[in-house]
Amino acid sequence: MLTFTHHYQSTENNKGEEIIQNALSRVTEEMQSDTIGYYKLPEGSKGLIDAAKSIDTTGITQIVIMGIGGSSLGIKAVDALLRPYTPGAKEILYFENSDPLTILENLSKVRENEALFFIISKSGSTIETTSIFKKIIDCFNLDLDGKDQQRVFAITDEGSVLSDFAKYHTLREFNIPHNVGGRFSVLSAVGIVPLTLAGFDTAELLGGAGKMIENFFEGKEDHLLSKALHLYSHSSRESINVLFSYADRLENLTKWYVQLWGESLGKIDREGNNVGLTPIGLIGAVDQHSFLQLIIEGPRDKNVTFIKIEDFQRELQIPAVSLHAIEKTDFINGKNFGTLINAQADATLQSLLDSGVNCDTITMSCVDSENVGSLLAYYELLTSLVGAMFGVNTYDQPGVELGKQILYKNLSK
Amino acid sequence: MLTFTHHYQSTENNKGEEIIQNALSRVTEEMQSDTIGYYKLPEGSKGLIDAAKSIDTTGITQIVIMGIGGSSLGIKAVDALLRPYTPGAKEILYFENSDPLTILENLSKVRENEALFFIISKSGSTIETTSIFKKIIDCFNLDLDGKDQQRVFAITDEGSVLSDFAKYHTLREFNIPHNVGGRFSVLSAVGIVPLTLAGFDTAELLGGAGKMIENFFEGKEDHLLSKALHLYSHSSRESINVLFSYADRLENLTKWYVQLWGESLGKIDREGNNVGLTPIGLIGAVDQHSFLQLIIEGPRDKNVTFIKIEDFQRELQIPAVSLHAIEKTDFINGKNFGTLINAQADATLQSLLDSGVNCDTITMSCVDSENVGSLLAYYELLTSLVGAMFGVNTYDQPGVELGKQILYKNLSK
Repeated sequence: MLTFTHHYQSTENNKGEEIIQNALSRVTEEMQSDTIGYYKLPEGSKGLIDAAKSIDTTGITQIVIMGIGGSSLGIKAVDALLRPYTPGAKEILYFENSDPLTILENLSKVRENEALFFIISKSGSTIETTSIFKKIIDCFNLDLDGKDQQRVFAITDEGSVLSDFAKYHTLREFNIPHNVGGRFSVLSAVGIVPLTLAGFDTAELLGGAGKMIENFFEGKEDHLLSKALHLYSHSSRESINVLFSYADRLENLTKWYVQLWGESLGKIDREGNNVGLTPIGLIGAVDQHSFLQLIIEGPRDKNVTFIKIEDFQRELQIPAVSLHAIEKTDFINGKNFGTLINAQADATLQSLLDSGVNCDTITMSCVDSENVGSLLAYYELLTSLVGAMFGVNTYDQPGVELGKQILYKNLSK
Repeated sequence: MLTFTHHYQSTENNKGEEIIQNALSRVTEEMQSDTIGYYKLPEGSKGLIDAAKSIDTTGITQIVIMGIGGSSLGIKAVDALLRPYTPGAKEILYFENSDPLTILENLSKVRENEALFFIISKSGSTIETTSIFKKIIDCFNLDLDGKDQQRVFAITDEGSVLSDFAKYHTLREFNIPHNVGGRFSVLSAVGIVPLTLAGFDTAELLGGAGKMIENFFEGKEDHLLSKALHLYSHSSRESINVLFSYADRLENLTKWYVQLWGESLGKIDREGNNVGLTPIGLIGAVDQHSFLQLIIEGPRDKNVTFIKIEDFQRELQIPAVSLHAIEKTDFINGKNFGTLINAQADATLQSLLDSGVNCDTITMSCVDSENVGSLLAYYELLTSLVGAMFGVNTYDQPGVELGKQILYKNLSK
């Protein structure tokens, strides 16, 4: 279960109800008209689970992902969270960046006779991903028309160049629906196929997401509307949204959130204004020793969302050891580390509220597939709502094209 | 060698020269009066190298660090960068957060008979660090007055409670100078002792830092002054400073920078205003697929510093494999991944400049101890200069105390 608590201290926009209704209409229209496809992935992706399970994994111990951005961040977010609770999950190895040292290190970790290879690219021609794919073909002498045909998979848009490539070599192919953008694709084939193969409970993941989306459209998650309204109406003052996650394994989720939020909302709006909200992901308690000072005493341009995990399901007690001269820390003896980290979240929240910072809290009862699915859907819905309020196209990313053109021009010389 | 290039497109403050001279005076005064100690660490820490090398490491294969914030971020930054170029470096295992899953996982990685244990805390009573230390004492039955006395080390302020603890058990102790703050302590015992023991070239690290600081005070690194002036005078418009690092192994350095920048500058100034600059660390090319859209089309509240590594010293060629239907990516064939990632940095820089975003570039000729030391000192100097321009106390962190008090109160109930 997820519990949502808003601790907002400032008054709302007096046009709030109208803004909310307009945004809700647009999001409902996106969903009903199938203009935007992620709303229906929890239902539409169910068939992928069986498809993935029908793949022969005899002797397979490793899933190799070649993908970057929306083609890796969501998989990594789920993987990091659920792995400690999924005994026997197969290793997933991620080839993302064009950094030669990382590629070299990763190549040395590939168990070439025990691996399935996934090349994931919505457009089909992502330069990092295709370059790495070439290196892997070359390095492991992959025979795409013979012995390795059954263990190289493409996940891409129908009709993309990568799709054509897969058909040419008769490789198994999974498609991302055209109406699902890369950063909203974690519950499409992009995430569901490799995560299922690795052994994660993707049925529950889809179930949790489906329940959040269904409940939202049934008016049972209206906190999403009031949060979206707060974020939108305070956007000029609180231009930075901090996600302060109190568990190390939430770090990849914060990176997924940063892409979703930053790339969806950072846009030129219909009037030609540069709008958007800047996402920052922090990890508690670590970043209490880093970024917290700035939130408390620096410019008042931030609000903060806390994520807490109520029950880590792993008890680990701080022993009753009293350290000579440091006895003042004895108050913590006998308590669990899970108690400590959550008490740190609560104390930090309280100190921020006392300093006048607007905050809200998301509490996960525990880390399980259903809760993780709900959390992903929650952030996708929130992004769509705030995008609707800003009046931007939440689902494109025109700003990054220029750099790609310059790269092509410079390297083609 | 480090090369610094400013691509600033906007005109400077007309009081620029005066602001620069005042900041330079304050920083020079901090250094000469020994009020602030980090300026002299490159010289003052030299003796620590021999001290560390005199520690018996027979049978030792692992350095266990218990520390958080300034007591781990700097060590991790150097470790991540230099490890690929330091064959035979001993493993360093970091216990930082109070997250029970991470602690459990780390405990299983400790090779108890082959490890040296470092508890690092400037104040001596950091709650995460002392709690973890208690767990480690208990878990591995450490006998601090007997068999384990020679392999447990304390790094802390002279006279701290941890110092008293160390003396009580006759443990080896290294002190952080009183005039060196936690986030400026990487070149004190905090970083130098464990990094030397792990096998890194700390003499060169100190040498590179020393040269940067010496050159700066001799007027040979005046780009630091003009950059500080730019950041300060544009702080209301460009309130966010993005560090876009084009190498995966720079991620820990960006985290070190985030603490240094955020915690030093996010302050209430003498007039009672909330001032500061918000640091964001990105990794290229990965975050071109995430955060870049927001910088280009979102609110114009950011400037960007690029870090590039000219020579990765590991050639890794993209093979001349032509993928059917994806032949348009053939322009990259035969080039090195290092060439690709740097061309991506250049293309992204160009696209940002074309969009009117102020940028600068730091180019490292290669990753070696001297360059890393210079880069650390560069950021410390820059922080001091901008802090002086803001007129804040760059070296304290009063804002985080409230949360600690609330934690103590809540858990002592």
